[in-house]
Amino acid sequence: MKIGIAQINSTVGDLAGNLLLACDAYSQLASEGADLIVFPELALCGYPPRDLLLKKRFGEDCLKALEEFAGQTGPCPSLIGFPQQSAEKGKEPFFNAAALCVNGSVKQIFQKRLLPTYDVFDEDRYFASGQASLFFTHLGKNIAVTICEDIWNLDKDLHSSDPLEEICSLQPDVLINLSASPWHDQKKAQRKELLHRVVKKLKCPLLYVNTVGGNDELIFDGSSVLLSSDGKIIGRAPSFEPSCSVFDLESGPAAMEEEAEVKMESIRQALVLGLRDYAHKSGFKKGLVGLSGGIDSAVTAALAVDALGRENVIGISLPSAISSDHSRDDAHALAENLGIIYHTLPIQKIVDSAESELAPIFDGLDADVTEENLQARSRGLLLMAVSNKLGALLLTTGNKSELAVGYCTLYGDMCGGLAVISDLPKTKVFALALHLNQNGEIIPRNTIEKPPSAELRPDQKDSDSLPDYEVLDSILHSYVEKGLSIEAIIGEGFEEETVRRIVSLVDRNEYKRKQAAPGLKVTPLAFGIGRRMPIVQKYSN
Amino acid sequence: MKIGIAQINSTVGDLAGNLLLACDAYSQLASEGADLIVFPELALCGYPPRDLLLKKRFGEDCLKALEEFAGQTGPCPSLIGFPQQSAEKGKEPFFNAAALCVNGSVKQIFQKRLLPTYDVFDEDRYFASGQASLFFTHLGKNIAVTICEDIWNLDKDLHSSDPLEEICSLQPDVLINLSASPWHDQKKAQRKELLHRVVKKLKCPLLYVNTVGGNDELIFDGSSVLLSSDGKIIGRAPSFEPSCSVFDLESGPAAMEEEAEVKMESIRQALVLGLRDYAHKSGFKKGLVGLSGGIDSAVTAALAVDALGRENVIGISLPSAISSDHSRDDAHALAENLGIIYHTLPIQKIVDSAESELAPIFDGLDADVTEENLQARSRGLLLMAVSNKLGALLLTTGNKSELAVGYCTLYGDMCGGLAVISDLPKTKVFALALHLNQNGEIIPRNTIEKPPSAELRPDQKDSDSLPDYEVLDSILHSYVEKGLSIEAIIGEGFEEETVRRIVSLVDRNEYKRKQAAPGLKVTPLAFGIGRRMPIVQKYSN
Repeated sequence: MKIGIAQINSTVGDLAGNLLLACDAYSQLASEGADLIVFPELALCGYPPRDLLLKKRFGEDCLKALEEFAGQTGPCPSLIGFPQQSAEKGKEPFFNAAALCVNGSVKQIFQKRLLPTYDVFDEDRYFASGQASLFFTHLGKNIAVTICEDIWNLDKDLHSSDPLEEICSLQPDVLINLSASPWHDQKKAQRKELLHRVVKKLKCPLLYVNTVGGNDELIFDGSSVLLSSDGKIIGRAPSFEPSCSVFDLESGPAAMEEEAEVKMESIRQALVLGLRDYAHKSGFKKGLVGLSGGIDSAVTAALAVDALGRENVIGISLPSAISSDHSRDDAHALAENLGIIYHTLPIQKIVDSAESELAPIFDGLDADVTEENLQARSRGLLLMAVSNKLGALLLTTGNKSELAVGYCTLYGDMCGGLAVISDLPKTKVFALALHLNQNGEIIPRNTIEKPPSAELRPDQKDSDSLPDYEVLDSILHSYVEKGLSIEAIIGEGFEEETVRRIVSLVDRNEYKRKQAAPGLKVTPLAFGIGRRMPIVQKYSN
Repeated sequence: MKIGIAQINSTVGDLAGNLLLACDAYSQLASEGADLIVFPELALCGYPPRDLLLKKRFGEDCLKALEEFAGQTGPCPSLIGFPQQSAEKGKEPFFNAAALCVNGSVKQIFQKRLLPTYDVFDEDRYFASGQASLFFTHLGKNIAVTICEDIWNLDKDLHSSDPLEEICSLQPDVLINLSASPWHDQKKAQRKELLHRVVKKLKCPLLYVNTVGGNDELIFDGSSVLLSSDGKIIGRAPSFEPSCSVFDLESGPAAMEEEAEVKMESIRQALVLGLRDYAHKSGFKKGLVGLSGGIDSAVTAALAVDALGRENVIGISLPSAISSDHSRDDAHALAENLGIIYHTLPIQKIVDSAESELAPIFDGLDADVTEENLQARSRGLLLMAVSNKLGALLLTTGNKSELAVGYCTLYGDMCGGLAVISDLPKTKVFALALHLNQNGEIIPRNTIEKPPSAELRPDQKDSDSLPDYEVLDSILHSYVEKGLSIEAIIGEGFEEETVRRIVSLVDRNEYKRKQAAPGLKVTPLAFGIGRRMPIVQKYSN
């Protein structure tokens, strides 16, 4: 049996566009001799549709799209994910379903049983747990169909039941899984281990079809794969790009090397895909980055070039009276290296105008963070004006470490439609910069080597008020991602005063993150929809 | 049996502070002769604790607080809500529980069965459905204990089971419900009807104890009540303020009038409570409002005075070259009426400085919305500087209609820590202004009567680009709150072109709402945590 993997890049809510992608992929794969064509989870509406599911007509419109897709199918059956409306009283309004379409109509429907409601997932908000059959027969084979989470509960640590037990007892010839599984930098390893455990348990080949593309904060890597019953790779779709490919279930394992994942290259590819899709799916061709001469904006601009093309990236240097010469030089060198459009917009006149108006109110009060914020906000003012006038998406350049401790200015450097590296801790920003330079200098060496500074006060350095980034990032990882208490973090060997100060900074800057641009998720726990902290709260442990 | 209602105002995560409130309330009510003292749902940790529940030590710390509370109890038993850690594999980590504490220890634990996971609620993310017993016996009475949602499913339209059926079959003498039920402008009527239906079904008295106070977007009204078995009010706690009161179950109905709810007064009280708690619980004494002379900022400032005191409110007029004389006069008259601190900060110099720097990039391009945004952002720049310098919470003044169609500037008039009236449609802002003036003019008459204008272009009026607010608000209600399709809204009698334009504006401004300040929820469906739309999406129906 030849299996077609339709790893398409759906746009959330774009029923007409996704239908077109699906029909094209079906035609291509059928013409290449596929005996069965499989699409990702919720491919027809995109993932995650979120509250679009609560719109009165959405279910009906999805059904129409499904029927149109089914209408285009010939003798080769196809499985495609869609939200199936349910009218059962006292239950959620949908099933997260997959339709088996063949010869012009929908033949059978499968329903997801295990619904993730943690991290970025809200499936219990919309979906009821499925009750439909898990099997269909095709070309004499007994084929089991699961959707994403259904195969992730082997240890019963996420849900109380495991659909694979029922499936296993019915001895499938093939197991199919339709997924929309967001990428993060540990996902590939987790997934590889999981898929091997599943194959070992079921003793049959496994077809895993994952969606690809960026939808808001989430990046889907694709990386669909067909494994033989002994866990060997028969065929594999690429990562971070759409693909249609046919693999023969009966052929032996491909003479394919295990893909050695290069972490930094994966992060780069993920961010480029997330950035490109956010921009293009929302109608932006051009991107705009404020260039400070520092490493964050440099990395962001380099990623923007990879995602949008150098001719579509505008870099702007916004020097103040405090800015060092090296900042301007480094920003300029970066723009030269990248070959992007480059402008300089000094902010001092705006800062001076604001300060002179504010003088009567500020009379007798000391200079403080207000004056630093004024500079950052003057830059935001100019960048947003350029963004508005030229129709270029302003990219926010802050990293995860800064966002965690609030070392950033709301309505200042936090201005922008998308935060490209806001889930990358500063230490990883350095690593990514070195990776970007591996085939020649793109990020100027001085940008990487000089001590990080916000340059909002003369001779200011990040290290004046923050511990070394190695220490900071370790504490943040323990506190934010692992949820450890202050005591437990101190127990890991960090200085008590430092831990308490960092924790307090994280807690009291929740209000900034509430108003932050959406940021591309690349770690298991990102700020954003996957972390839902109260803003005003007094827990301190 | 004398029942003490402990309607306390918990702060999320403030275990020590909430414990103190609880112990004080217990002592007071016990000394007033209560035979049983009841607190609201999750009173010990505040509602909603959200991802604080995922911190490793949170459950343990809540248990410690519970044990300390129990340690203070004497012979009078008390029911108090707390998150009970659960170690069951494959289940959520907590139960939403209530502990019966008496004579120094926890005697019995009750667990919420029905978990809301819709609108602003995420309980399936944290809580497993309870299995514990629903009854205890005290003074010879068979008392049933439920938590919030447990009594809201009489029609089985929210969940597939109804715990009241089991309770009813066991013939309780009293039914108790611990709640944290967020207020909106239709909640009191809904709740009244529901409580009467519950009493009718169970044929026993009902004690409903609801939390009070503002926590981020949510406002809890309290309004706890003791109903007799025939649905008469035996006793009632006030709305929108904390209260400790004892009522005798055996006494007849109070000679209490049915509370006639004055809608606008309830909205005013709710917003004042939400604003005051947001400010005070996050450590702000002072509030700051940019006064445009328009109705939104006028109403916001008046509410700030009610919440924080006139001496703690700063109003700032930020005229541009375009601002009309009446704007400045109206802003000034409002500040005089309110007796608040008042400053004027002209923005023209900042706008001019920015435009002169931008001139080379903007050369040859027409004026557009960029220049309007520059003015709004120059105001944001100055207001945030004053906020930073004086430590005053900047209040955002936008209304729900504007926020819906994006008639507001990101990082401009959207600057601020809390959006006070962002869930009030413009038509209700007018109604609230009239209500605020009922005992004498506070909002200047001209502010109410002049045509609304953003004053970002000469002679600009809202009506140049938007339909009348009556029409706009009706379309928005159908689209945003009812989720109706374009076709259905046209079917309600609105002009097709207008409906399409408004719907498109709502959809494409999701990115602004993503970065909006938290807004106080006063309608059944507010923008914010209760409405989770994708930002980049292409569904258009």
